[in-house]
Amino acid sequence: MAQAAGLDQIYAPVRDDLAALERLFRVELSSDDAFVGELVTHVLATRGKMLRPALTCLSAFTAAGEPPDAGQSGARLGVAAAVELIHVASLIHDDVIDAADLRRGQASVNAVWGNQVAVLLGDYLFSKAFHILARLRADGIAAAMAAATVRMAQAEIKQIKYGNTAHTDEAIYFDIIDGKTAALTSAACRCGAMTAGAEAETADALARFGLEWGMAFQITDDTLDVTATADHLGKPIGSDIQTGKVTLPIIYGLRDASAPDAQRLREILNGDGAAADSGGPRASTLDEVSGILARTGAVGRALSVARDRARRAADALERLPRSAARDSLALLVEFVTVRTR
Amino acid sequence: MAQAAGLDQIYAPVRDDLAALERLFRVELSSDDAFVGELVTHVLATRGKMLRPALTCLSAFTAAGEPPDAGQSGARLGVAAAVELIHVASLIHDDVIDAADLRRGQASVNAVWGNQVAVLLGDYLFSKAFHILARLRADGIAAAMAAATVRMAQAEIKQIKYGNTAHTDEAIYFDIIDGKTAALTSAACRCGAMTAGAEAETADALARFGLEWGMAFQITDDTLDVTATADHLGKPIGSDIQTGKVTLPIIYGLRDASAPDAQRLREILNGDGAAADSGGPRASTLDEVSGILARTGAVGRALSVARDRARRAADALERLPRSAARDSLALLVEFVTVRTR
Repeated sequence: MAQAAGLDQIYAPVRDDLAALERLFRVELSSDDAFVGELVTHVLATRGKMLRPALTCLSAFTAAGEPPDAGQSGARLGVAAAVELIHVASLIHDDVIDAADLRRGQASVNAVWGNQVAVLLGDYLFSKAFHILARLRADGIAAAMAAATVRMAQAEIKQIKYGNTAHTDEAIYFDIIDGKTAALTSAACRCGAMTAGAEAETADALARFGLEWGMAFQITDDTLDVTATADHLGKPIGSDIQTGKVTLPIIYGLRDASAPDAQRLREILNGDGAAADSGGPRASTLDEVSGILARTGAVGRALSVARDRARRAADALERLPRSAARDSLALLVEFVTVRTR
Repeated sequence: MAQAAGLDQIYAPVRDDLAALERLFRVELSSDDAFVGELVTHVLATRGKMLRPALTCLSAFTAAGEPPDAGQSGARLGVAAAVELIHVASLIHDDVIDAADLRRGQASVNAVWGNQVAVLLGDYLFSKAFHILARLRADGIAAAMAAATVRMAQAEIKQIKYGNTAHTDEAIYFDIIDGKTAALTSAACRCGAMTAGAEAETADALARFGLEWGMAFQITDDTLDVTATADHLGKPIGSDIQTGKVTLPIIYGLRDASAPDAQRLREILNGDGAAADSGGPRASTLDEVSGILARTGAVGRALSVARDRARRAADALERLPRSAARDSLALLVEFVTVRTR
């Protein structure tokens, strides 16, 4: 758990915010219905690293150059809560779409309660997020967040339509992850800055940071899917291969591999080699994919693109005043590109 | 199509609004992606009677007592568009949840493009609605709409959990339809009034109207499901029976039927008698249900509750100034309780 300690350190400037956020979730998501309460408890217990709310709060602190005015904490926490709820809602719907049984090492909502409840719980959390944003009475923020959510849904539709074929190229891949991941992390940073009353130039710089951070994060995540072990990742390895998603290392593999290797890769993506119980591709198949991607240097090439995006994220911070929060954002860039889980 | 003509007449005071709304949908839902465009075209082509946007616009006109100021039309049309998009998004998700192949006589989104696309298209339209509302920069409105959407999702979760058993009683049924239908129609009316700068008392009266109208509408709709013919309804008859939903006429049937009739009704709700291809219950089974409900007077009893709610809706209009728009709202109450489709 060396990296969890790393995050603790990175989150230090906004530790109070993140603690307050836990309390806010419990208030905002309380329900008079026992079953809805049970669902919410499951969701709150299986959340991840809180990267997106941390981006929001750290962006606010960075924009302010020092701890923001106490009067701004309501808006900042509201944005952070909404960002996380939108993210969690989209993951719940993603698990329905991918028929995924695991999320962060725990049973997914659809696995426990079925697709019907999972679709509705996602809708419930989306609605809660927009209810929180509407009550902030800071319109530019709600509009920026809603625009990001529109882009997320559109990108996921594109992923279904164009992202599952061997014809997906880099341009389509970047367009999809830009919408599905980076739009929200960019809005998380921009809106965080807005809660601190940031100038347009500062908000733009943090939005650019969030965008590049999101791209670096997603490319790394997609690459880990073909290289990491299940134990580390908290979800079945090779889940993208199982669902036929064409990610950057695969695109490079298909492009650069020898003809027989490329042919075999295409066969695997088309579903050959998946275990009959659909618990994921066979270990031997994954080894085969890893082998092909290693021979072609595809994994290294994808990670190098992630590092390039990380560099651009760090560059976006350069013109902002130095602060502990800005240092944390810079460390968060490293965190997502050097992580092994 | 006598009733379509009826609606034309009822909608007369807001005819220009509804025409402008069609143009607004095309602008708001335009996409640079051909596939998303195809989905949106399908959705726009299979919309229903535009009851909810009409409620919004007629409420605004009623609150104003006369045609509202020209400067208010942007907010009014924005609310009307958002109400319809939220409604359409929830129907798309409902069809995933019910595995329904038909919607308004056309193939449902899930039937044509699958559940994955349908889940995401619903998310896309929800997000569009909140993007439109956020840009209105009228916070009370976005918050009221988001609160209604939270209640919708929560009510649908309750319907999955409690609405499909023979133990559902009137109180649970009313709670579910209050959230699933009436919360949105109430918000549609309240927010319409707010765009006309209505006093709180006027907005409250129209919200009460919308609530009672929604209850009357849903009870009637649920009753038609067990009595109408497929040709009139544009969806398979008995779809609630097929999905095991316990609606008001069924609750009364179970409560008031003779022991053998009640026992048979429970068997049918538990899935006996459904056709093997799940195209709906067999016609003979539906006849049996209709027969039992007729013998017990359950249909008449449910429709009488709908009429009572309709009366309360009409009462809510009484203290508002008379106008063509108010007359239309009163006619819309009759429209939903005397309709046969």
